[in-house]
Amino acid sequence: MPIIIKSGTLITASETFDADILIDGEKIVSVGKNIDISNAQLIDAAGKLVMPGGIDPHTHLDLPMFATVSSDDHYTGHKAAAFGGTTTVMDFVPQDYDTLREAVEVWHAKADDKAAIDFSFHMNITRLDEQVEREIPQLLDLGITTLKVFMAYNSRLRLQDGEIYRVLRIAREYGMLTMLHAENGDVIDILVAEALADGQTSPEWHARTRPGWGGVEAVLRGAALAKQADSPLYVVHVNQVGEAEQLGYARQRGVNIMGETCPPYLFFTDQQLERPDGAKWICSPPMRTVEDNQGLWQALADGTLQTIGTDHCPFFFDGTQAIEYEGKPVAIPGKELGKDDFSKIPNGVPGVGDRLPIMWTYGVGAGRITPNQFVALTSTNVAKIFGLYPQKGALVPGADADIVIWDPNRRLTYGVAHAQHRTDYNLYENWELVGYPEKVFLRGDLIVVGERWLGKPGGGRYLSREPNAIMI
Amino acid sequence: MPIIIKSGTLITASETFDADILIDGEKIVSVGKNIDISNAQLIDAAGKLVMPGGIDPHTHLDLPMFATVSSDDHYTGHKAAAFGGTTTVMDFVPQDYDTLREAVEVWHAKADDKAAIDFSFHMNITRLDEQVEREIPQLLDLGITTLKVFMAYNSRLRLQDGEIYRVLRIAREYGMLTMLHAENGDVIDILVAEALADGQTSPEWHARTRPGWGGVEAVLRGAALAKQADSPLYVVHVNQVGEAEQLGYARQRGVNIMGETCPPYLFFTDQQLERPDGAKWICSPPMRTVEDNQGLWQALADGTLQTIGTDHCPFFFDGTQAIEYEGKPVAIPGKELGKDDFSKIPNGVPGVGDRLPIMWTYGVGAGRITPNQFVALTSTNVAKIFGLYPQKGALVPGADADIVIWDPNRRLTYGVAHAQHRTDYNLYENWELVGYPEKVFLRGDLIVVGERWLGKPGGGRYLSREPNAIMI
Amino acid sequence: MPIIIKSGTLITASETFDADILIDGEKIVSVGKNIDISNAQLIDAAGKLVMPGGIDPHTHLDLPMFATVSSDDHYTGHKAAAFGGTTTVMDFVPQDYDTLREAVEVWHAKADDKAAIDFSFHMNITRLDEQVEREIPQLLDLGITTLKVFMAYNSRLRLQDGEIYRVLRIAREYGMLTMLHAENGDVIDILVAEALADGQTSPEWHARTRPGWGGVEAVLRGAALAKQADSPLYVVHVNQVGEAEQLGYARQRGVNIMGETCPPYLFFTDQQLERPDGAKWICSPPMRTVEDNQGLWQALADGTLQTIGTDHCPFFFDGTQAIEYEGKPVAIPGKELGKDDFSKIPNGVPGVGDRLPIMWTYGVGAGRITPNQFVALTSTNVAKIFGLYPQKGALVPGADADIVIWDPNRRLTYGVAHAQHRTDYNLYENWELVGYPEKVFLRGDLIVVGERWLGKPGGGRYLSREPNAIMI
Amino acid sequence: MPIIIKSGTLITASETFDADILIDGEKIVSVGKNIDISNAQLIDAAGKLVMPGGIDPHTHLDLPMFATVSSDDHYTGHKAAAFGGTTTVMDFVPQDYDTLREAVEVWHAKADDKAAIDFSFHMNITRLDEQVEREIPQLLDLGITTLKVFMAYNSRLRLQDGEIYRVLRIAREYGMLTMLHAENGDVIDILVAEALADGQTSPEWHARTRPGWGGVEAVLRGAALAKQADSPLYVVHVNQVGEAEQLGYARQRGVNIMGETCPPYLFFTDQQLERPDGAKWICSPPMRTVEDNQGLWQALADGTLQTIGTDHCPFFFDGTQAIEYEGKPVAIPGKELGKDDFSKIPNGVPGVGDRLPIMWTYGVGAGRITPNQFVALTSTNVAKIFGLYPQKGALVPGADADIVIWDPNRRLTYGVAHAQHRTDYNLYENWELVGYPEKVFLRGDLIVVGERWLGKPGGGRYLSREPNAIMI
Repeated sequence: MPIIIKSGTLITASETFDADILIDGEKIVSVGKNIDISNAQLIDAAGKLVMPGGIDPHTHLDLPMFATVSSDDHYTGHKAAAFGGTTTVMDFVPQDYDTLREAVEVWHAKADDKAAIDFSFHMNITRLDEQVEREIPQLLDLGITTLKVFMAYNSRLRLQDGEIYRVLRIAREYGMLTMLHAENGDVIDILVAEALADGQTSPEWHARTRPGWGGVEAVLRGAALAKQADSPLYVVHVNQVGEAEQLGYARQRGVNIMGETCPPYLFFTDQQLERPDGAKWICSPPMRTVEDNQGLWQALADGTLQTIGTDHCPFFFDGTQAIEYEGKPVAIPGKELGKDDFSKIPNGVPGVGDRLPIMWTYGVGAGRITPNQFVALTSTNVAKIFGLYPQKGALVPGADADIVIWDPNRRLTYGVAHAQHRTDYNLYENWELVGYPEKVFLRGDLIVVGERWLGKPGGGRYLSREPNAIMI
Repeated sequence: MPIIIKSGTLITASETFDADILIDGEKIVSVGKNIDISNAQLIDAAGKLVMPGGIDPHTHLDLPMFATVSSDDHYTGHKAAAFGGTTTVMDFVPQDYDTLREAVEVWHAKADDKAAIDFSFHMNITRLDEQVEREIPQLLDLGITTLKVFMAYNSRLRLQDGEIYRVLRIAREYGMLTMLHAENGDVIDILVAEALADGQTSPEWHARTRPGWGGVEAVLRGAALAKQADSPLYVVHVNQVGEAEQLGYARQRGVNIMGETCPPYLFFTDQQLERPDGAKWICSPPMRTVEDNQGLWQALADGTLQTIGTDHCPFFFDGTQAIEYEGKPVAIPGKELGKDDFSKIPNGVPGVGDRLPIMWTYGVGAGRITPNQFVALTSTNVAKIFGLYPQKGALVPGADADIVIWDPNRRLTYGVAHAQHRTDYNLYENWELVGYPEKVFLRGDLIVVGERWLGKPGGGRYLSREPNAIMI
Repeated sequence: MPIIIKSGTLITASETFDADILIDGEKIVSVGKNIDISNAQLIDAAGKLVMPGGIDPHTHLDLPMFATVSSDDHYTGHKAAAFGGTTTVMDFVPQDYDTLREAVEVWHAKADDKAAIDFSFHMNITRLDEQVEREIPQLLDLGITTLKVFMAYNSRLRLQDGEIYRVLRIAREYGMLTMLHAENGDVIDILVAEALADGQTSPEWHARTRPGWGGVEAVLRGAALAKQADSPLYVVHVNQVGEAEQLGYARQRGVNIMGETCPPYLFFTDQQLERPDGAKWICSPPMRTVEDNQGLWQALADGTLQTIGTDHCPFFFDGTQAIEYEGKPVAIPGKELGKDDFSKIPNGVPGVGDRLPIMWTYGVGAGRITPNQFVALTSTNVAKIFGLYPQKGALVPGADADIVIWDPNRRLTYGVAHAQHRTDYNLYENWELVGYPEKVFLRGDLIVVGERWLGKPGGGRYLSREPNAIMI
Repeated sequence: MPIIIKSGTLITASETFDADILIDGEKIVSVGKNIDISNAQLIDAAGKLVMPGGIDPHTHLDLPMFATVSSDDHYTGHKAAAFGGTTTVMDFVPQDYDTLREAVEVWHAKADDKAAIDFSFHMNITRLDEQVEREIPQLLDLGITTLKVFMAYNSRLRLQDGEIYRVLRIAREYGMLTMLHAENGDVIDILVAEALADGQTSPEWHARTRPGWGGVEAVLRGAALAKQADSPLYVVHVNQVGEAEQLGYARQRGVNIMGETCPPYLFFTDQQLERPDGAKWICSPPMRTVEDNQGLWQALADGTLQTIGTDHCPFFFDGTQAIEYEGKPVAIPGKELGKDDFSKIPNGVPGVGDRLPIMWTYGVGAGRITPNQFVALTSTNVAKIFGLYPQKGALVPGADADIVIWDPNRRLTYGVAHAQHRTDYNLYENWELVGYPEKVFLRGDLIVVGERWLGKPGGGRYLSREPNAIMI
């Protein structure tokens, strides 16, 4: 049965207007005034905002790390995302298997049956040899067009500059996009070893051993490699004003480089790590200073940064205590693993469900970005850059009917009790929100209605992507 | 009879997608897949691009200047605009009458019966006293929300800084927008007088007596006044990289300042003035250097500039020789008035019809801006900033059906023989174009079909605008 | 009798080395190792620093303002300067008389008999007509090569941009230097009038009615005028990071523009004005923010600013209460004149004696500038820019023997009890100092020894300057 | 016998003044007016300029490279330097021996008996292990305080980032200074291999395989490592405006980073490599573009760069043909070694003797830098940064009497016939010079008088340096 979303105010990356949306099956069929179809189901959106579903370019679900695994799997993470208005996530496949294909298969095995929203994969390239070079183009057959490389995590994930350059050139040849984790691994490793040798084991040493200048130079290094390879580059989790400055420096000189930030970098600083529960804020790279918060907001507003992702990689703060999830107790080892050694604290924070609500209230509501920028940064730009456009990220005929009906007047006090992440804490505990998703459609299916979950494992679909996407 | 534009590729400020458009009367009713209405007229747009009609924020039609008048009136200028894909123009009303209301009435008398496309007015404020201060808010009743002030043309158009500041504060109070001509009038007047006293009468002295640094400081001065008044500011005809740099400086520090450039500043330099027919390129401010051309392209691409206008103010190069226009000979005194004195050359160049075709081939086609940026810069952003959005500038239901069907494959050698301006020359004579308007709709009426003109005097409508527009 | 300053460590604008200085009469004769002259007086400087006497480019002594006069005259101000290590001051002559010559004569009448250190004059040009234009070059006959213009104080001191441009061009023709007070007078006048009309009379409104952006644009406006006139420009009392940024912008683009800051702008903010005794900090332009303090330090360190002056223009905080000066009670109306109206508070702060000691401890001692930069900024650069070099500002043979022997280990708690200004307060009350002048020579004469004053009225000499100085 | 240099105009890093200089033995004893000593030898410098001898921080004498050796040894190179007004050079010791001490001994064996001017050594650190880490502090005993590291020349000279960081930290601990060759070795190696595989063997491929962006990022990477190690860094041969921009970026953010450029980067571009004799201009990094030339001049003028070195490393253009040097034929294999393979062309250009004359005429004479900046950049700053100050680089009592008497009116047509390098070409062939050294003193000894050579092998002395020099 066709669905008509009636009388809402549609918000896209550039437009704001009042119209109805006609959905037939999985697709948006038309956007019009006073659409009237005899047999349609009517959804009243009067007084509400209607936006494309959020797309999170950066999640780590069911990811083994140290002696545990990230606490959201491809079902619980998807469900949390959906409650927050996100209908597509993009997860990273570790290169921990003999072939890239095998790695992707492993990830499909984890995800396909659990997926509750649509999803896609990025491939980590953390080891490069001639075989891997040959395999990379074959990823296109698997619907994967994006490659992530690391300048940090020596002898575990890091590639050398020359290897990154090779990856960039393969990417250019095949219309793929390279994503960069920009830190200086050498310095970090030295500092971590020294801190531990010095008996410094508490969480604040996580930030102290990852000095910001390493990220600033790494961004420019990435830009230089990308320019030399004539290949686009996407910098994940930009966390400092200096990184944004170098992004801007390179962009103004014709480098095709883009940047993503994540909400925590806009709100928190390394001071959080000094709290008794500082481990909750441990992720890499760390949150920095108030000046960095402000500079990143400016970079979002003026277009130096193109996307907002989450780097969602949740862990329990206290994995020895079970929480209840879908009626059952769950306990997964978490941050407590590093209570005597900051370098053993699992790296990562929850966020996939927080992203849209937090950015709405504290971004749009606070006047830092416009509603159109909100949609561009959290959905449309992501779809374009990652080759999902206009199937995703746009309220246009022919697009998937991934739609959020947003209640701009809904007020709530946010926190772990509200968020749906499978973990025992939330970074925004007790933050006041104004505006929240009311209904969420995934390809025409209502999967969230207020507090009610209508989605299901397997309801999400793998998105095979095409190369030669739109670099912004 | 409803109209369906079938199978085109729609391009908006952020989206590119294939869909049909249903027009009913003057409005877009819906945008959808496979729209099928029994009684509709079908317009085949397969293989074509469908964009919102261009909006030119800056024209001077039928404007008295020196001993003559700009050679396009509100009919011929509109017609030329339409052939170039523009369906709305915004003309400036001189404050040459006892009251602002009277001035607006004079302009209506000139325009209303001739208008062939939709139009709106900006009000020049070139004299400020308490009466004028009281009259400005009353402009809202006349549908005028924008005020232009000048830092040049002493004792003719210029306001003092304090007066500009007062205008900005009135604008803030009433949700109006101030537009700024940014040059330093004092220095210009001294240099012009000296050049003439020195017997320097040829066209190149036009540029030599308007040094670029005067524009650069004027932009920052405007930004400072705007910031202090907490009121937005729109800088017209940004013509130098230094002006763009100062715009960027101010924007990054939270000043709500926007900028427009015009195509000639992207392509030509002051070297043109040294040609035997240099007077053809005389406008104020003058075109500058190759570095300025490049810097302005960069500023368009990275969002430092928000719009492309034309400052269309055509004159005959040789007004002693008649040309044929709509079958009748026309001769209007022009650039020859200044053949012995550059300061008497009427200031202005034709451009309202050139804007879209030139920017498409040499902007989009040359890879300097994207198709979406093309639409944003020439239409959507203009509509937003000037309070016409989403009635104009958007392909959304409820919007006026001002639509251009663009043939991306049309090749032609452009020039005065093709352009429809009522003048005897064109700045882009013999330039090769790829891509050109094929059909143009004004509120649902086809007014241009290829070379055929279906528009008519009086077919255009005055656009009364609302305050509190969307500053970008 | 010749004098030998033995065994000191000499510090110049670029060198630091151990040597003796031989003084004969008014001049330095030689700088050498182990100078041994039979009949010389020996001054032991072992363990001490030996530097050229400070040169303050910016004082206002005995200056009528509102209903009073600045409280230091050309004797007391010179004496205070000398105690602080300064041996030359440059005072501004108001254009308050029929001719420039007459104005200079008035200033000579005030200064010549009182002068206790060497001095020179700058000429304010606050009214320009053809007669004044003819008189300006004649200033060279009076030893005056520098012209100060104002962009603020409408209808009192301000020149229009075109007038400033004319001054700059005369300056270029005759090798003179133009100095600029960079604020936007129009906006200030409007805001002051409104604040008073609104009943806002307290000191903090002084800063609130002089918004910083007016200074930022004025610096760039000055730069543009200077560039267009091809004439150097010196911006007095740079007080904000934005002004320094615009100075840097212009310098990097080939504008010959220089800048001075004053110590209070490096240490204080507009918060001071909210104190009960806020009027003590009233000067124009006002002190700004902590970010401005930091940015100005950076601009001193990296060469964007070339000099440190004082704008010394002291007033009593409470002019109804006499203080004792040289054994006699003195009371001069002061800041209390504006207790009911901030706009009537005499504008200015004491500083001529504080400059070197404060900058040494909090500049050199704090690691923000080097000892060589200290000398360059407070003496050598001033001498060069203002045409006194190498007569002044350098420890070289042939130079005037204006020398400070500085005790780097002297510790004291500074304040009004120590400073010698003829006023009842000091901005740096209770600041701890490390390093202080021990002996001060003026042209070979010891005028200060510790707390003892050996100078006398008339002991200072007027410095006639030559045009075509060294722009840095 | 004491020497008096009479009546010259002395130019130092900050002062210009007329005085005599008294030299006794190796030292300057005093600088004074009308120095009169009965038994002194008088050198008339009336009408001449008197400056401290030049100090070249960057030479490669007698350096084995590929199948040859740089064609100037420690005698011929010193002699050429002296004719050009340079009295001290600093040469790099390769780490090609078991211990650092042994390497230094080898270099002493090459240099000590041949040295004709004073000299010092920098130590290359191109291999780092625990033993080397222990040896580095011992270099202080050998008078070496400076360590050079490379980011290019993989598996030959390059250190990894972490190793550079370790070197920087050792440097900090012992007051040493690290010098950086900033290029990205990984990318270069890939591109060189590919070019050769592709049959591209001509000289222009030298520049094409060393893309500029690699240098830009390497400078910022160096800055980041230095900041993190809290240790100063000196970037050798800055060759692009982008590198200068990143230096400025870092300096403004408190990084203690300094930069050197070399004359060829100010005058030539990579276009030279396309000449038939393009190999003459082969050095690493390559010369870049006209915009880079201009940007580097700006960086010298505004203090972003602190020194001018030469990277003197001459080779014959045609080593199969002997030239005459001191009356004997000399032939050393040179650039012809790479006639079939650009990667085999010995890297390096002559310059130690050209530096001062070329910079005087085309820097000072052209108005790009002042005479004081000339002295600072080529002598005083070098002495300070490298721990030779004030023994060298200053015309102060107690300093070594290394003095150049410069004839500002000497005109000549420069080139290989004039320069004294032991090679068969000169980069500045037929350039017109105005101003040239007339006499050169080394520690009180006249070693050059016009065209006459009075120096001798062994006349130069090794300069043992002290740590904790003056970072600028």
